[in-house]
Amino acid sequence: MAELQKGLEGVIAAETKVSSIIDSQLTYAGYDIDDLAENAEFEEIIYLLWHYKLPNKQELKELKEKLHEYMPLNDSVYNHFKEYAADHVHPMTALRTSVSYIAHFDPDAEDEGKDKKFERAIRIQAKIASLVTAFARVREGKDPVMPNKDLSYAGNFLYMLRGEMPTDIEVEAFNKALVLHADHELNASAFTARCAVSSLSDMYSGIVAAVGSLKGPLHGGANERVMNMLSDVKTVDAVDDYIDEKIKNKEKIMGFGHRVYKDGDPRAKYLKEMSKKITEETGQSQLFDISVKIADKMHEEKGLIPNVDFYSATVYHSLKISHDLFTPIFAVSRTSGWIAHMLEQYRDNRIIRPRAQYIGETNRTYLPIEERD
Amino acid sequence: MAELQKGLEGVIAAETKVSSIIDSQLTYAGYDIDDLAENAEFEEIIYLLWHYKLPNKQELKELKEKLHEYMPLNDSVYNHFKEYAADHVHPMTALRTSVSYIAHFDPDAEDEGKDKKFERAIRIQAKIASLVTAFARVREGKDPVMPNKDLSYAGNFLYMLRGEMPTDIEVEAFNKALVLHADHELNASAFTARCAVSSLSDMYSGIVAAVGSLKGPLHGGANERVMNMLSDVKTVDAVDDYIDEKIKNKEKIMGFGHRVYKDGDPRAKYLKEMSKKITEETGQSQLFDISVKIADKMHEEKGLIPNVDFYSATVYHSLKISHDLFTPIFAVSRTSGWIAHMLEQYRDNRIIRPRAQYIGETNRTYLPIEERD
Ligand SMILES: CC(C)(COP(=O)(O)OP(=O)(O)OC[C@H]1O[C@@H](n2cnc3c(N)ncnc32)[C@H](O)[C@@H]1OP(=O)(O)O)[C@@H](O)C(=O)NCCC(=O)NCCS
Ligand SMILES: CC(C)(COP(=O)(O)OP(=O)(O)OC[C@H]1O[C@@H](n2cnc3c(N)ncnc32)[C@H](O)[C@@H]1OP(=O)(O)O)[C@@H](O)C(=O)NCCC(=O)NCCS
Repeated sequence: MAELQKGLEGVIAAETKVSSIIDSQLTYAGYDIDDLAENAEFEEIIYLLWHYKLPNKQELKELKEKLHEYMPLNDSVYNHFKEYAADHVHPMTALRTSVSYIAHFDPDAEDEGKDKKFERAIRIQAKIASLVTAFARVREGKDPVMPNKDLSYAGNFLYMLRGEMPTDIEVEAFNKALVLHADHELNASAFTARCAVSSLSDMYSGIVAAVGSLKGPLHGGANERVMNMLSDVKTVDAVDDYIDEKIKNKEKIMGFGHRVYKDGDPRAKYLKEMSKKITEETGQSQLFDISVKIADKMHEEKGLIPNVDFYSATVYHSLKISHDLFTPIFAVSRTSGWIAHMLEQYRDNRIIRPRAQYIGETNRTYLPIEERD
Repeated sequence: MAELQKGLEGVIAAETKVSSIIDSQLTYAGYDIDDLAENAEFEEIIYLLWHYKLPNKQELKELKEKLHEYMPLNDSVYNHFKEYAADHVHPMTALRTSVSYIAHFDPDAEDEGKDKKFERAIRIQAKIASLVTAFARVREGKDPVMPNKDLSYAGNFLYMLRGEMPTDIEVEAFNKALVLHADHELNASAFTARCAVSSLSDMYSGIVAAVGSLKGPLHGGANERVMNMLSDVKTVDAVDDYIDEKIKNKEKIMGFGHRVYKDGDPRAKYLKEMSKKITEETGQSQLFDISVKIADKMHEEKGLIPNVDFYSATVYHSLKISHDLFTPIFAVSRTSGWIAHMLEQYRDNRIIRPRAQYIGETNRTYLPIEERD
């Protein structure tokens, strides 16, 4: 038999046209992430990841209309949110449960990827923004806000979250964050989604699985924890001791390290720029300064570089977003990538079923219970 | 870079002490499945898979007490079931949503596998039986049935499903089915669960992901579809034409084939025996005869052998279980294996993050929308 590939490092588990990471360059369907981060609207990215081409005017218009049309949720979802809120669940848990629940109202939910795939995809992509924003409001005792036809996806997210028109600068920043998080080749959650639907299960099952994966602190869950760290550290001067202590205790520092990038995450530089700008504008440069100091220290001590979750934390914080919504926002963006990967999996499926190396005891015989230790 | 491993065939993705498949022999923690199928109670299997040893009297007693204690569900779950039922969702969909929902009531749900692991494991294993049986009753307008302290896990499942004491023969058959389905090395859903929690996400996230995977027709979803096939075929004489037609249309025959076993699934022989016995007892030998004829035909035409899902279908049918509960029953049993795999993943974790081979276009440049096709 073959050798153990722990964490499947370096194993090629799929072919893809969705995105690539080659020599630390990230592309979506062949477009450099820099080019897209500077120019594209998140809706264009959704289209690009699913169809491998940027939409023309008509295609973009149709996509936007459908996203808007599908954003509102069934009333019973809002009612459930009141119950979830009373139980004080984390928004990622609420998202996991509710994204499974909205499948109940999709007449094509049980269609195992054969037909109406794109329709279902748009539906999920639309509703995920509503799930996150509506839960955030309901738990504060506020009514959900319906989407506004004149706003983009990024704009609507902020609008549905706060009930006020976002500024252009806010929309631009948030749009860029969505673009940068949309896909990332076979990341853990996209791979989990592919695994789930490789039994030809339905798309909701894949999304639910991916949300469950993203939730973990080694993946999307890191961004919320970066903010906890910044709050703990408080001052630039406290960084050294804080990090030394963590390293001594062999604790991981959230927002650092990456399986694929070893010299730099191309997404981090945008988020760093954005973080600098937006923390200045909101009078919180201190947070940015602490971040930079932590990054320097981590590079020095461990040779580790900030990943996408490190500077996104201060960006979202400066947009006055609750810290426990950071990971759900990651999910909102990454849903576009999860769906793109599932569409590929359905198109050329083989069940994902690796092997395990057995390292336990062998040749044991069942003894009556009286004779056991 | 390495080569594509489609479906990860033959790739060793983990080390395990839970179960092994070597030369078509299946063992759980080193005990041959034959030995266990003849002798063990499902609760012993749960313990064995999680602790790699069979429980002694005291350990088994404690496990049974806790399973019993945790079986009842929060009232709001029963209320939600009424809503799910009104929306006519498939029991696997109801299970996916509700197993995520019960995490809301677990004070340790967000504990990322660090502490109280076994407590949470027992809780999930207990409640999964209640989720499946309660939903089955609620959708028929009946009240849920609370577990009976004098019954085993298998007995309680049947009791909570029907509200009547099951016979010894029924309990024995159902227990054996649970034992045979409990684990199966790195099957697709167990691997999906491991992927989900390899971000150090919580155990519920892993279970939800696994339920989503099992649901698909290439995996657990096959058993329900076997029954559809038997209903379609109706008579032994119709088998040849039915299978010929399917093969001509390149459709897969549910309940046949396996990634690992090529000459015979060791679980199938028990289920075949049970199917023969129980269909005879219930005056439905016709179903068994059709099954055997299909198996012969498939072997002749495609060299394919029945897997665990083929004969389990008629066993459950003869126990008067609704066909759409077959896959949820698979989930109830396999939860023990999913948990065993997650416990191992937590114990020696590395995030599961393979690579993809990029086969799309390269070096593309963002064009303004007016200039696009
Ligand atoms: C992202 C991550 C999961 C990648 O995992 P991986 O590819 O398996 O990383 P490796 O285990 O190969 O890391 C190599 C070494 O660096 C260490 N390391 C990696 N990330 C670290 C971190 N954030 N803090 C401290 N040490 C870290 C590892 O412990 C390992 O050390 P060892 O060789 O002494 O065991 C990992 O870097 C991590 O846990 N980061 C923190 C969480 C995070 O920010 N996640 C968001 C990712 S977008
Ligand atoms: C179980 C299963 C998913 C294994 O998948 P796998 O390891 O990728 O199987 P392979 O693709 O290697 O199968 C080899 C060949 O047999 C064919 N085959 C496998 N199972 C088949 C089935 N049930 N009916 C018809 N043909 C089948 C495949 O199409 C393939 O043919 P090809 O080489 O012409 O493409 C597959 O056998 C299957 O889909 N079975 C039906 C669903 C089922 O019963 N699942 C329950 C599993 S417990």
